[in-house]
Amino acid sequence: MDQLQDLLAQLRHFVAERDWQQFHDPKNLAMLLASEAGELLAEYRWVRNDAADTLSREPEARQRIADEIGDVGIALMLLCDRTGIDLQTAMRDKLAKNRRRYPVEHSKGRASRPIA
Amino acid sequence: MDQLQDLLAQLRHFVAERDWQQFHDPKNLAMLLASEAGELLAEYRWVRNDAADTLSREPEARQRIADEIGDVGIALMLLCDRTGIDLQTAMRDKLAKNRRRYPVEHSKGRASRPIA
Amino acid sequence: MDQLQDLLAQLRHFVAERDWQQFHDPKNLAMLLASEAGELLAEYRWVRNDAADTLSREPEARQRIADEIGDVGIALMLLCDRTGIDLQTAMRDKLAKNRRRYPVEHSKGRASRPIA
Amino acid sequence: MDQLQDLLAQLRHFVAERDWQQFHDPKNLAMLLASEAGELLAEYRWVRNDAADTLSREPEARQRIADEIGDVGIALMLLCDRTGIDLQTAMRDKLAKNRRRYPVEHSKGRASRPIA
Repeated sequence: MDQLQDLLAQLRHFVAERDWQQFHDPKNLAMLLASEAGELLAEYRWVRNDAADTLSREPEARQRIADEIGDVGIALMLLCDRTGIDLQTAMRDKLAKNRRRYPVEHSKGRASRPIA
Repeated sequence: MDQLQDLLAQLRHFVAERDWQQFHDPKNLAMLLASEAGELLAEYRWVRNDAADTLSREPEARQRIADEIGDVGIALMLLCDRTGIDLQTAMRDKLAKNRRRYPVEHSKGRASRPIA
Repeated sequence: MDQLQDLLAQLRHFVAERDWQQFHDPKNLAMLLASEAGELLAEYRWVRNDAADTLSREPEARQRIADEIGDVGIALMLLCDRTGIDLQTAMRDKLAKNRRRYPVEHSKGRASRPIA
Repeated sequence: MDQLQDLLAQLRHFVAERDWQQFHDPKNLAMLLASEAGELLAEYRWVRNDAADTLSREPEARQRIADEIGDVGIALMLLCDRTGIDLQTAMRDKLAKNRRRYPVEHSKGRASRPIA
């Protein structure tokens, strides 16, 4: 079993042991994901852009950031598991769309809006 | 090369071709992640909990949801790549913490707050 | 001086005393607002729709919810003050747009998408 | 009737005409608020801190930002109306707490964490 599959099995066990499937419909999991993304955001809200890499390497901040990244990743895996949406396929499909929405000649060096 | 590594290589190429590394400091990527999580949230904001699984299977909604999941996953991978935080390690470490924060006997069947 | 103006004066004093204007550019305040909205979201993430009104009346939950609402409101006032955007005008203008985007005949009883 | 009361009356009418009260329980309104805050966040995600004030004055960006601020304000008013939580009281109470959590001598010039 590969590592992600093993982690998913552990997550399912964690949820089942606590009888939490009842709370984990896709709506609630989308809320979990967004609230965890908000906590990650909070770690960076006062740092300047040019100090954000440095902050990410300071041990205490790095641990908090890794914890929040872990929470976001867990919420995302739970949502994918519940909906049956394959995360890697979703990312590949969206990347293909983004290649079309942000053509290189239109977007190079500019944080541009999509062309459509 | 495994599939996630291949996807990461494609993401890096996508960003480099557009010269977007300059925008992708951890602060901005945390904002990207949170705004994409907000778009995913929007898909579920008016549906009732008990209709959220059904919505997730309707073809048009499912495509939009998969697209937003793809965006969130991409933002998360970009942030992990920039900070050098390993996503799977972060998820495993957080799951271990959550096992301690939400003991089975304290949390079974209850969406309880952590014990600490 | 009306009550909102008085509150704004207090907020400005609070920020100035701590010399926090340096952190309060619009980007950071938008992050503050989103992270506080994420905390408010967290209060409701496990409750079912039909229990959300009841939860909002339970004294302890109500206090936490009111605190998060206060944080969101403060962040919004700080952002409006920094950008010079008048909140009431912005709300009135957006309501007028929403009337056009969601015509009654199109939207009545349906959580519909906008017509444009 | 003061201006905010008049705006609230208009909001209630807008919702009632569309028969949308059924969707506006506090859980869904918290989701609305967070997703609108995510859209506001998106306006600032690629701009540097020191360019965020300038961006906020550019006519097209300013209009989009004002629209998102309007959406956030509307969502906040709807949530306060539904829960019966008075927004100004909530802000005043939270500001009083923040004065205690961020004492001037502890926080001056530093984006510090709260003392408790």
